[in-house]
Amino acid sequence: MVADYLHTYAVIMAGGGGTRLWPVSRKEKPKQLLPLLGQETLFQSTVKRLENLFPPERILVVTVEEQAQEMKLQAPEIPEENYLIEPAPRGTASVVGMAAMVLQKRDPKSLMAILPSDHFIRNVDLFHYLLKAAFEVAESGYLVTLGITPTSPSTAYGYIQQGKVLEGEYKYPAYTVKSFKEKPDEQTAQQLLRSGDHSWNSGMFIWRVDAIMTEIDRQMPHLSAELKAISEAWGTSKQDDVLNKRWLNLKNETVDYGVMEKAERVAVLPAGGLGWSDVGMWSSLFEVLLPDMDGNIATNSSLHLAHETHNTMIYGGSTDRLIVTIGVDDMVIVDTGDALLVCKSDQSQKVKEVVEHLKKHRQEKYL
Amino acid sequence: MVADYLHTYAVIMAGGGGTRLWPVSRKEKPKQLLPLLGQETLFQSTVKRLENLFPPERILVVTVEEQAQEMKLQAPEIPEENYLIEPAPRGTASVVGMAAMVLQKRDPKSLMAILPSDHFIRNVDLFHYLLKAAFEVAESGYLVTLGITPTSPSTAYGYIQQGKVLEGEYKYPAYTVKSFKEKPDEQTAQQLLRSGDHSWNSGMFIWRVDAIMTEIDRQMPHLSAELKAISEAWGTSKQDDVLNKRWLNLKNETVDYGVMEKAERVAVLPAGGLGWSDVGMWSSLFEVLLPDMDGNIATNSSLHLAHETHNTMIYGGSTDRLIVTIGVDDMVIVDTGDALLVCKSDQSQKVKEVVEHLKKHRQEKYL
Repeated sequence: MVADYLHTYAVIMAGGGGTRLWPVSRKEKPKQLLPLLGQETLFQSTVKRLENLFPPERILVVTVEEQAQEMKLQAPEIPEENYLIEPAPRGTASVVGMAAMVLQKRDPKSLMAILPSDHFIRNVDLFHYLLKAAFEVAESGYLVTLGITPTSPSTAYGYIQQGKVLEGEYKYPAYTVKSFKEKPDEQTAQQLLRSGDHSWNSGMFIWRVDAIMTEIDRQMPHLSAELKAISEAWGTSKQDDVLNKRWLNLKNETVDYGVMEKAERVAVLPAGGLGWSDVGMWSSLFEVLLPDMDGNIATNSSLHLAHETHNTMIYGGSTDRLIVTIGVDDMVIVDTGDALLVCKSDQSQKVKEVVEHLKKHRQEKYL
Repeated sequence: MVADYLHTYAVIMAGGGGTRLWPVSRKEKPKQLLPLLGQETLFQSTVKRLENLFPPERILVVTVEEQAQEMKLQAPEIPEENYLIEPAPRGTASVVGMAAMVLQKRDPKSLMAILPSDHFIRNVDLFHYLLKAAFEVAESGYLVTLGITPTSPSTAYGYIQQGKVLEGEYKYPAYTVKSFKEKPDEQTAQQLLRSGDHSWNSGMFIWRVDAIMTEIDRQMPHLSAELKAISEAWGTSKQDDVLNKRWLNLKNETVDYGVMEKAERVAVLPAGGLGWSDVGMWSSLFEVLLPDMDGNIATNSSLHLAHETHNTMIYGGSTDRLIVTIGVDDMVIVDTGDALLVCKSDQSQKVKEVVEHLKKHRQEKYL
């Protein structure tokens, strides 16, 4: 039992700068800061999704300097001191470590939910229910991860294989974790989908702060040592200096690889029906937005005249710009002021390669 | 023998307003007035193609009031009085009749070549050679048509079936015409392509003015009577009044149907190797512009980054706008300021239907 949820915190990881939603996401406007799915930005939706579960003073945001100001504008209800700034990107293990270190100082009994800032979840009530269930399991000392029940043989996610059901009086069944698996190839993905005991790794983790700290101490002594140094200076006049100096010593490491894979007590809650998407590439918007009878989606004020067109998404444009498609199937068309993308849906993960190409050829103005 | 080509005239038919190259061609900017294939407009290329064959004073342009001014700007070398204005569109038979009437008054011995204003011809030398050959046959009294040797089973053109070779000392073989055929269905088009004795009807005709007038008198007495009335007023103060009044009495009729199909002495010159295209729809630009190794064409200053893209044409855009395609095959992408077209190449004839739809729904600003 989590006593009245007085010690539960949400930590939003918001420092990323993905390239797979180019040309809408740009260097200065990463995905989470964009109103990709309507009026709100993904970051705002993430914050809003926590309403009635966490008061704003128990929501932390870990981000980088360049994004912090915009985030404070977008979510002014979160107290200034709850924005934690990474001096430089050092991977999710470091982010988790910083948040855990800060929470441990504020509230040694705290439990935290680590949540990405740029995901979509349709069914917020179910999300709340599952988070509460996960906190309950975490209270027993487990490092808990929300596994998403796969709906397709996706090669874009890592997979988690569940083991035995946890014993105990939990409101929702949790399982031990047999293994974490890297992004599979297509054939393997088909097998994992059929197996019935694999979930997608959503990047959402729930644990007691002391439990994750114990694992960091055990498995990542280097990170642990730097965090201790930062912790000592925290709240003093030396805080920023020490943070900046120590942080740069850290290795870039994910929490999955650095902690979860070899942690002692790991649990997974298989979550189906959340209506979850990581909005990881253009084609994932087909999972999120509702298509018309022909499978087409015209969004973000775009004016679309579809002639013999199916399963095609028009994104961007403007109410003044007419986009006509004729004989087009399974396509994503993204129209912005200085760049137009026309991409076969099942190849939208390759947008990343195009952005790499633009970087390599120093086409800065399109990045 | 055409004595030194002193009585040969070119008549450019330039009043049309096609819709199949939307969104580039618009109501106020029909296809022939656009620089579709480079710096020059199709109309300018048509005029330029006549250099060294016709002096400007023997080039006539038949067009409508709305387009005349722009044409005079684009081809100032053609004398003002050589622009003939149709008071309203009444089909190619009426255009031919007006031009023949005017030429007959100027030069009773004249021969004329009727030429569309919006076609592309790669090999101008061969075009000159064939026109001269056609004038030679026309001098004998034949109504001559240039037939284009088919290079595909096109359903976009009418076909001309040739009969026996004409006897006589011609520099290039000409044939009698067995039949004119309407645009065929796909299966028939395959047969016509294989037959070896069918050409595409290019809409280019060559004849003596007295020969075409005789056929108009015989087959189109109504047109003939109106032309006579206009002819009597021509050059007098009543010219415009009579033209405007009489012209509106005319029926809309093509020269093919109204004259050629039942004319007595018709000949066809089968023309291969001209590099001809009527530039009738977006996909026909693949015949005209030179693709890269992947079959892609980026034209009109567009900046195209092609990733796993084949046989795709990018038209429009600007040097500042980047167009990225990923996994795209056989597509036409036309990017203009207020409209974007993405169209499977083999369906680009359907652009016409889209424009009809826009008309019907009174989307005037996109027409």
